[in-house]
Amino acid sequence: MIQTDIVIIGAGPCGLFCVFEAGLLKLKCHLVDYLPVPGGQLAEIYPKKPIYDIPGHPEILAKDLVDNLLKQIEPFKPDFTLGERVETLEILPNGYFQLSTDHGTCLQAPVIMIAAGLGCFEPRKPEISNLIQYEKHGVDYIIRDPEKFRNKEVVISGGGDSALDWCLYLSNICSRLTLVHRRKEFRAAPESVSKMHDLVAQGKLQLFLNSEVAELHGDHHLSSVSIQSDDRKFSIACDYFLPLYGLSPKLGPIADWGLGIDKSAIVVDTKDYSTNIPGIFAIGDINTYDGKLKLILCGFHEATLAVQSAFKIIHKGQKPSFKYTTVTGINSL
Amino acid sequence: MIQTDIVIIGAGPCGLFCVFEAGLLKLKCHLVDYLPVPGGQLAEIYPKKPIYDIPGHPEILAKDLVDNLLKQIEPFKPDFTLGERVETLEILPNGYFQLSTDHGTCLQAPVIMIAAGLGCFEPRKPEISNLIQYEKHGVDYIIRDPEKFRNKEVVISGGGDSALDWCLYLSNICSRLTLVHRRKEFRAAPESVSKMHDLVAQGKLQLFLNSEVAELHGDHHLSSVSIQSDDRKFSIACDYFLPLYGLSPKLGPIADWGLGIDKSAIVVDTKDYSTNIPGIFAIGDINTYDGKLKLILCGFHEATLAVQSAFKIIHKGQKPSFKYTTVTGINSL
Repeated sequence: MIQTDIVIIGAGPCGLFCVFEAGLLKLKCHLVDYLPVPGGQLAEIYPKKPIYDIPGHPEILAKDLVDNLLKQIEPFKPDFTLGERVETLEILPNGYFQLSTDHGTCLQAPVIMIAAGLGCFEPRKPEISNLIQYEKHGVDYIIRDPEKFRNKEVVISGGGDSALDWCLYLSNICSRLTLVHRRKEFRAAPESVSKMHDLVAQGKLQLFLNSEVAELHGDHHLSSVSIQSDDRKFSIACDYFLPLYGLSPKLGPIADWGLGIDKSAIVVDTKDYSTNIPGIFAIGDINTYDGKLKLILCGFHEATLAVQSAFKIIHKGQKPSFKYTTVTGINSL
Repeated sequence: MIQTDIVIIGAGPCGLFCVFEAGLLKLKCHLVDYLPVPGGQLAEIYPKKPIYDIPGHPEILAKDLVDNLLKQIEPFKPDFTLGERVETLEILPNGYFQLSTDHGTCLQAPVIMIAAGLGCFEPRKPEISNLIQYEKHGVDYIIRDPEKFRNKEVVISGGGDSALDWCLYLSNICSRLTLVHRRKEFRAAPESVSKMHDLVAQGKLQLFLNSEVAELHGDHHLSSVSIQSDDRKFSIACDYFLPLYGLSPKLGPIADWGLGIDKSAIVVDTKDYSTNIPGIFAIGDINTYDGKLKLILCGFHEATLAVQSAFKIIHKGQKPSFKYTTVTGINSL
């Protein structure tokens, strides 16, 4: 049984910064995330992409922002439960919340901070009859370690940023790289599309437009894919097939906790980003209110106001004393 | 006559970041500030102090945060009118606002963003009959360039952070440094108080407790001060007297514009930080709402939501298209 002041569901940028603001008020946090590492979408979806709209950072790689946030919260020694999904919520007779994860981990706290971003991400999968059979055996939806594909034959499908960004990145890593896209037009950034065409011109990328991967073949591990291109159908040998159609967020078990929900987001009050259940707050991309923008910098603000009310709940109505870090510093707290 | 999309009153961190968010929506900004340089309190009051609660910056000097923000908004080429105070507001027949400064500069725009921090800062002055006569002639309330005091004899009075921080800083610069404090206890951070006592022990600082600077002397320029200490009174020679009792903010002429005001702050709606006058927004330390915290990171959020509504006013109801900088970047805008 894990006991703490605040359980933060989601270890993305907003959940991480919440630890800092809670720490300034001497509140202890425990973060739970379904992903195996902290950072949320930044670590999982676009670690190597620069972000330009974090105030005071003209340009910062998503991964570096996560590292900075981890360094910033280090003095407050947060605990993490990673790779587990919070499933059930129970309100105990003493008013505390009890949460349990899909791995059976049990957590108790007087305050829950839901910072679960867009929820749990599930990859959008193309309709190929035997696709699931090759998962972990040649089919990947999320690229965790590009080195896995070094000197391998790889087929990517998709026409958005994810597909094109990875084409550009993997073109120097794979022994042969093929891009299959069902349309002629790409949704990706024009600059990426132009770079992709350069790769085709240089012979570093094989491109099939108006085409779809129709079948997967191989004993146990993938060895080739069939491509349907207009009227013709042909096979190409490959070690990996990467359907990169983006990730589709699911609110998951949180949807059944009795929280006010509007269009897959949790309705909150902007005075402290509290939900309709006293003691449960929702911050970052997962909440909604009049004027809401799904931006990291907004989540930082929301986390900051929410922990003020969390303090009052934890300390039974006592008001937190407000101090500026420029005056008090962090270590003197 | 200066014409622009948004006039931002106040070039502190919040006003500066507003330029960035407005720039993403292709809105042009003109900043006006009473101070001679951008950065607001960060540049004026504590440029060399580290800030710890800017998300993604475990520690950053106030001055460096200002520099980063200036770099971040560079692509959007904002214009500045510095060293001037906005005095009057007029609503023109076409609905635009017209502002004029104490220097007679005239500005027109459909949107006004008030990011004036705590207003115009005025130093708190001790009650010494001939104090004003020595302003600019040996009496300073704000330390702009510490080098001015190199090898000089300096008397500081005050017991808060400002007085003590400058004691610590100037102890290696002045030829003789004296601290006069009317009480025995200090309001400053305990660590600073302890360091100050170390300086006294090392003979680098002369300390008078339960004492007050009572009189100033000197022909034209200050040459000595009289100190009243319990029952005795004595004079010490000095080149400069620095009464450091902090700055007292004044809302200034803005208070007379018909804006909803509560305890010297402008009342706003948290959906877009709009005031009671359509087209005028208030962001950062100058506004107030249920849950308000006077933190830089909150001002960043407020600026971001405010420019969304500013866009709709400027483009007659059209909704801004929402893009992530990770996808579109800045230069492609």
